[in-house]
Amino acid sequence: MGKKLTTRSEDYSKWYNELVVKADLAENSAVRGCMVIKPYGYAIWEKMQGELDRMFKETGHQNAYFPLFVPKSLFEAEEKNAEGFAKECAVVTHYRLKNNPDEPGKLMVDPEAKLDEELVVRPTSEAIIWNTYKNWVQSYRDLPILINQWANVVRWEMRTRLFLRTAEFLWQEGHTAHATKQEALDEAMQMNDIYATFAEEFMAIPVVKGSKTENERFAGAEETYCIEALMQDGKALQAGTSHFLGQNFAKAFDVKFASKEGGLEHVWATSWGVSTRLMGALIMTHSDDNGLVLPPNLAPIQVVIVPIYKSEDQLAQISEVANKLTSDLRAKGISVKYDDRDTQKPGWKFAQYELQGVPVRLAIGPKDVEKGTVELARRDLLSKEFVNQDEVVEKVSALMTEMQDSLFEKAKSFRDSHVTEVDSFDEFKKVLKEKGGFISAHWDGSPETENKIKELTKATIRCIPFNQEKEEGSCVLTGKPSSQRVLFAKAY
Amino acid sequence: MGKKLTTRSEDYSKWYNELVVKADLAENSAVRGCMVIKPYGYAIWEKMQGELDRMFKETGHQNAYFPLFVPKSLFEAEEKNAEGFAKECAVVTHYRLKNNPDEPGKLMVDPEAKLDEELVVRPTSEAIIWNTYKNWVQSYRDLPILINQWANVVRWEMRTRLFLRTAEFLWQEGHTAHATKQEALDEAMQMNDIYATFAEEFMAIPVVKGSKTENERFAGAEETYCIEALMQDGKALQAGTSHFLGQNFAKAFDVKFASKEGGLEHVWATSWGVSTRLMGALIMTHSDDNGLVLPPNLAPIQVVIVPIYKSEDQLAQISEVANKLTSDLRAKGISVKYDDRDTQKPGWKFAQYELQGVPVRLAIGPKDVEKGTVELARRDLLSKEFVNQDEVVEKVSALMTEMQDSLFEKAKSFRDSHVTEVDSFDEFKKVLKEKGGFISAHWDGSPETENKIKELTKATIRCIPFNQEKEEGSCVLTGKPSSQRVLFAKAY
Repeated sequence: MGKKLTTRSEDYSKWYNELVVKADLAENSAVRGCMVIKPYGYAIWEKMQGELDRMFKETGHQNAYFPLFVPKSLFEAEEKNAEGFAKECAVVTHYRLKNNPDEPGKLMVDPEAKLDEELVVRPTSEAIIWNTYKNWVQSYRDLPILINQWANVVRWEMRTRLFLRTAEFLWQEGHTAHATKQEALDEAMQMNDIYATFAEEFMAIPVVKGSKTENERFAGAEETYCIEALMQDGKALQAGTSHFLGQNFAKAFDVKFASKEGGLEHVWATSWGVSTRLMGALIMTHSDDNGLVLPPNLAPIQVVIVPIYKSEDQLAQISEVANKLTSDLRAKGISVKYDDRDTQKPGWKFAQYELQGVPVRLAIGPKDVEKGTVELARRDLLSKEFVNQDEVVEKVSALMTEMQDSLFEKAKSFRDSHVTEVDSFDEFKKVLKEKGGFISAHWDGSPETENKIKELTKATIRCIPFNQEKEEGSCVLTGKPSSQRVLFAKAY
Repeated sequence: MGKKLTTRSEDYSKWYNELVVKADLAENSAVRGCMVIKPYGYAIWEKMQGELDRMFKETGHQNAYFPLFVPKSLFEAEEKNAEGFAKECAVVTHYRLKNNPDEPGKLMVDPEAKLDEELVVRPTSEAIIWNTYKNWVQSYRDLPILINQWANVVRWEMRTRLFLRTAEFLWQEGHTAHATKQEALDEAMQMNDIYATFAEEFMAIPVVKGSKTENERFAGAEETYCIEALMQDGKALQAGTSHFLGQNFAKAFDVKFASKEGGLEHVWATSWGVSTRLMGALIMTHSDDNGLVLPPNLAPIQVVIVPIYKSEDQLAQISEVANKLTSDLRAKGISVKYDDRDTQKPGWKFAQYELQGVPVRLAIGPKDVEKGTVELARRDLLSKEFVNQDEVVEKVSALMTEMQDSLFEKAKSFRDSHVTEVDSFDEFKKVLKEKGGFISAHWDGSPETENKIKELTKATIRCIPFNQEKEEGSCVLTGKPSSQRVLFAKAY
């Protein structure tokens, strides 16, 4: 266990890094920028995958798998996309190692096994997928194509942090093909909505839905929709994006279809993705100085039962109660772990499960056996109470919903109190410095102004929110006219 | 749909390749040796994953994720493992592309972005994982570690075939660490047994369990257990392997633990895996000249309902029956697709689902509505019968089990009739040439003899079966004494 976590007020960034490692979520590996996702962290990711996968399938999408490698000639076909990713991509140039004659026992790249064409390890799969779709689409009858892929991708980022920015990460990427522009726009919007629903209902993270500005758009997209969340330190985090790609990839890869009307048209595209970065958002939305706090809907272990005993005899009696509770709770669909290991003391277990964010802890001692009670501790409030054994199942079932809702409400009220409307650049800087959060301000619509503001404050436009009334105003930096406010923030 | 499949007797290999593509399972991609797994093929793989994952978790394993890349210095640490995989590995040498000044719009590797140390794209993950376990293990209390990973791996094979041998493939790889040799041996055996159970109960493929000879062992293993299946063309296919790695990786990566007794000892290891290669085994065990045949336990669509109609009115009446059947069957946990698309004719649909191996097809026409019947077609026997609508659910439920069993029995009787005991090398060659299958023969136990037989016949020792009585005899090639028969075959 080691010593306590650095507190959030001491050093938020250090708190985060320590928490990820100490709660057994992930750790750095021997490969620069690549992480090891440990079993407990991966179990949370599996819960996320399960829910998202269900939502994708319910909306008609199917999973498939495309190659890890993108030949350079395909990679460069869509110019903007290539430009956006070329600067940070891992490139395979050889297909063999051989013994190094100068250093026995060591290997070296075999210069005779140089590939004719370099292969880029996919940073995203539009190129390889649209090169495939080309052969799948002849007529409008072949459309839409609604495919998702669960995969690893690599972006050679220079500064990395566990989950938030890693050279390799896991994600899902949807790639759809449509006969009309409107259908593609609707699809991109639908998937952004699914991400928002998932974030709010499962991760208990309130998000703002909106569009990205041209500067912040995905390389190769005509429109990027997104969901933006706010972390406890006042920085924003882009939690998911959904892109309307227009006909850019269809043109780059010559994907045309015979329309109902008899014409030959380029196909319309979308792509959309969320990644293991969501793990970072989950941690930074709910956790506290004692460790991880997990919403019940994503907790791999929802309830842990810890026996407190001095003799084998006591343990046997406690186990009887614990085993009954375990099976009754499981019958309600609640995941339970009964930790009767004798290698660790109860205090150690309490601290460990607190650190790992298990929503409910039940402790049972000899007195509880006598009295027919258990001690129930709630992770989010760090509160404790005694509950009659015959009321535990009902109480815990209700708590699953209550804690899920309460975490969301708490995060929402924090977020809502950290959206500040400002009307001058001085105020902008003051709020950003003293309070952080989202700053709702007028902007003249030009990339230059956005860049200038970024240069001066490090804040970027997180999104142009969808659900926001038009309002005449003037740009917070240039004073030029503006018809609506946008959300600025410093971001992860 | 295109024209009919090549038949198996005409050209088995061509039949296989055509089937994989026409049944929409997979296709070749723009990357040499890498495949695209199409949605229908991927759905079968997902069913396999689901069952295996459940079996792994039920035996105490957890999933995790380790980096895609292995730094060269780690890759070469376990000498035999490195030697086994160095000849066919993809190597990342650079982390950036830049604009090619000589060819506008084209990119080139940026020579200034050369990695200090080359990264091997994992062909298997022992090296990166044992380098990680090193930090996880101090004491016997940290053991066992029971971890599985679902991942993509790359082996730069020169001759590739869809599913059977591809440069990139999907698999799971279990990597466990133990305090004692016996515990590791038991784990390796347990996982081989799980693979056998999965193959027989879900894939309906009978397998022989056994050990590999030294020649055929995994690079770096002290013992390799395996399950061997027999394909319809008389060639064997290694369907899963489980390795006892001894202390080889613990020594290479210096992984020691403080034992209960107070000593400091090297950890014992296993690894085990199955891959998308299983898709090839599934196809080649059950399918026929009309296309894929799927065991119900792995069929993404177990029942398809096709309406046969001339008017909208008829369709409405048929749909009423079909929708009721669909929901009744689904209530029994059976997956059903009602294909009422008007873009394709019934005949086209019949052929398509036959090609794709959907176990049961129900066809409903106006006469069936009148008479209260449906036409039920069984994919494995290509048989048809009329069934009363109120008996369909019961009938189909029973068929799911019946077809599963019947496919297994059919494959088993084929396999059993293709295990031939031979006692001379002439007989060996004759049987291999005229009949194929497994040849059960005495072998003197030397790698040289095994190599010589391979050279002369292309047959290798598939395994030394576990469940086989000892029998004194003499080697089929050298005449030297042998204490048990082993199984030879030509293999995929």
